[in-house]
Amino acid sequence: MRDVSVIGVGMSKFGKLEGKGIREIGEEACWNAIKDAGIGLRDVQAAYCGSALTGLASGQDCINGQIVLRQVGITGIPVTNVGNICASSSCAFREAWMAVALGLYDTAIALGVEKQTAIPTLKLLERYMAAMDRELEGNLGLSMPAWFAMIANRHMQKFGTTSEQLAKVSVKNHKNGTKNPYAHFQKEITVDDVLNSRMVAYPLRLFDCCPISDGAAAAILTTKESARKLTDTPIHVVASSQTSGSYAEDSDITTCDLDVRASRRAYKMAGVKPKDLDFAEVHDCFTIAEILHYEDLGFCQKGEGGKLIDEGQTEIGGNIPINPSGGLISRGHPNSATGIAQICEIVWQLRGEAGKRQIDNAETALTHTVGGFMHADMCSSAIHIFRK
Amino acid sequence: MRDVSVIGVGMSKFGKLEGKGIREIGEEACWNAIKDAGIGLRDVQAAYCGSALTGLASGQDCINGQIVLRQVGITGIPVTNVGNICASSSCAFREAWMAVALGLYDTAIALGVEKQTAIPTLKLLERYMAAMDRELEGNLGLSMPAWFAMIANRHMQKFGTTSEQLAKVSVKNHKNGTKNPYAHFQKEITVDDVLNSRMVAYPLRLFDCCPISDGAAAAILTTKESARKLTDTPIHVVASSQTSGSYAEDSDITTCDLDVRASRRAYKMAGVKPKDLDFAEVHDCFTIAEILHYEDLGFCQKGEGGKLIDEGQTEIGGNIPINPSGGLISRGHPNSATGIAQICEIVWQLRGEAGKRQIDNAETALTHTVGGFMHADMCSSAIHIFRK
Repeated sequence: MRDVSVIGVGMSKFGKLEGKGIREIGEEACWNAIKDAGIGLRDVQAAYCGSALTGLASGQDCINGQIVLRQVGITGIPVTNVGNICASSSCAFREAWMAVALGLYDTAIALGVEKQTAIPTLKLLERYMAAMDRELEGNLGLSMPAWFAMIANRHMQKFGTTSEQLAKVSVKNHKNGTKNPYAHFQKEITVDDVLNSRMVAYPLRLFDCCPISDGAAAAILTTKESARKLTDTPIHVVASSQTSGSYAEDSDITTCDLDVRASRRAYKMAGVKPKDLDFAEVHDCFTIAEILHYEDLGFCQKGEGGKLIDEGQTEIGGNIPINPSGGLISRGHPNSATGIAQICEIVWQLRGEAGKRQIDNAETALTHTVGGFMHADMCSSAIHIFRK
Repeated sequence: MRDVSVIGVGMSKFGKLEGKGIREIGEEACWNAIKDAGIGLRDVQAAYCGSALTGLASGQDCINGQIVLRQVGITGIPVTNVGNICASSSCAFREAWMAVALGLYDTAIALGVEKQTAIPTLKLLERYMAAMDRELEGNLGLSMPAWFAMIANRHMQKFGTTSEQLAKVSVKNHKNGTKNPYAHFQKEITVDDVLNSRMVAYPLRLFDCCPISDGAAAAILTTKESARKLTDTPIHVVASSQTSGSYAEDSDITTCDLDVRASRRAYKMAGVKPKDLDFAEVHDCFTIAEILHYEDLGFCQKGEGGKLIDEGQTEIGGNIPINPSGGLISRGHPNSATGIAQICEIVWQLRGEAGKRQIDNAETALTHTVGGFMHADMCSSAIHIFRK
């Protein structure tokens, strides 16, 4: 297995990008990544693209990677579209990593692109029921906010987690987002703002939820050997891990077993422990999700996620900063683009290019996305660990 | 790179499978493959699933592999959904091959599943415009039959190919299909039947076109080393090649440049020439497509595809039998399931288990699928070569 490194990353602005389709949004991210890598279009030998929900939202499906790359000017290479809902581009990145590690290609691009805001939100959410098992969860009407609300209620009842602690996750991520020019939201909020925002599904309020965004992100991967020739700041992929959930009779909705399994495998592969990480980008689709991930990824004991945010340990400057980019809650969540947007943040931070949100002396970091119902087998967790 | 072999394959019946969704159709194919491999459910360590068009046809999307595997009883493993239109499950197979070759997993399942007939055909075809670039080809109204009709007209004008020669492809494939219990159509037809069938897009008539089918197919891959322990009849993957099309100023619609490029790479990887193949399964979505593939895959010179079918060389018993399974035209075309259905046929033939359609002494064979507009960059060609 060859060692693989990231030599270039790029994003589009995340947000409601009116008048732009996947062609324009994706092109911007790809060009930014290619320019960042300092390579030519002909150096890109293969592509993997996540774009799971654009088909449901806009009716453009199946060949979204090809459409974006045609616009960039890259043709005649293998392009594979990968769909695992919110984990789509993390999984696309993993396939690109595999292909380079195996020696099929020396240089590949992984991208995620999503155009979701072209149709009204309620219509969009109805269509998104396609992304869960319609005959089971779908027919129960179990939407994502409803499911995470149930998790939050149980976490509060079992561990004493409070609405204020949830709110602090949103406040932290909004604050980080103001320092990220690509973020959907660029405004600081207070705990009171969160607690007074509209109720979505008790106890989750509007500011406990990530937005629906448009956006794209891309990364260029090559061998560690080539990377050292091409750049002074290669970022090495030291672990890639993916799994799906499973049912267990004694399962507990306050634990994501697939995150536990996927992260332990990643730590083993990288030869690190959670305490060795300098920061992480995790899948904060709802504030309670970030609390759960603190625990399941091993940054604190189970039930102590609320305490971790209370102590400020996950702030930039804290012991284990989480989502310095602003995360899904503030950077925004153009579904399939999120996984590689996390990787962009890791690369910028490890290179020391993260501007006002820079974490000092960061050397090792983790990305984590999860797509689908976290507690059923209908989901995927994809975790990568990077080192400079 | 570890050598990889196929140790089990399975299909569902192809056709209009009323009352069955991807859950039931996919389960049948997966169980058939698992039983054929003689392994347990817990031996399957990863899954790749092609199911590109079911989302558009039935509203179930993004997690179709997970849904099928939940039904089979496989949970808690990485499941990745791959979408490249008609080449989706060939590309899923390729990713599974990569993962086993790299050493990430010892045993993986690749599957393709599609439920297309739940909605009326015209509604379906309208939705399928999503699978082409809507802003370019889509807005031109350039549907697949129209495009292949243009190719056929040009091939006739340039090389003297006749409607009778096209018809003979359909006659051959229908004849082969009568010997395949999984085939959508089980009835022999004559050249006159084809020439008198309803016109779809001149010169292509109804029997020049493959049907829209439901169906699923699955394959179990493992290392060559393990395969030798598990079965007396392992079928080895000796080449895997994928590419997309490209534009060229001098491009000629009677040649598929991506098939030429992908097949030459596959031949080089396998160390064989076209004449070394004992038979092939190729993407006969329309009769003219099979003629083109004869030429572009190197089974005859450019322009001589009509002569090849006239001489009976592509019949079972001929020099290079093509589509002994019945191909897309007679076995049917449940889109994403087609690529692995081809692999099922290869495995059965190379093992000597193909019953009435058995090709004598077959040792080396090729599968070829192409998804999207063959002459633009909006398509993928995936080719595999197998040896017993």
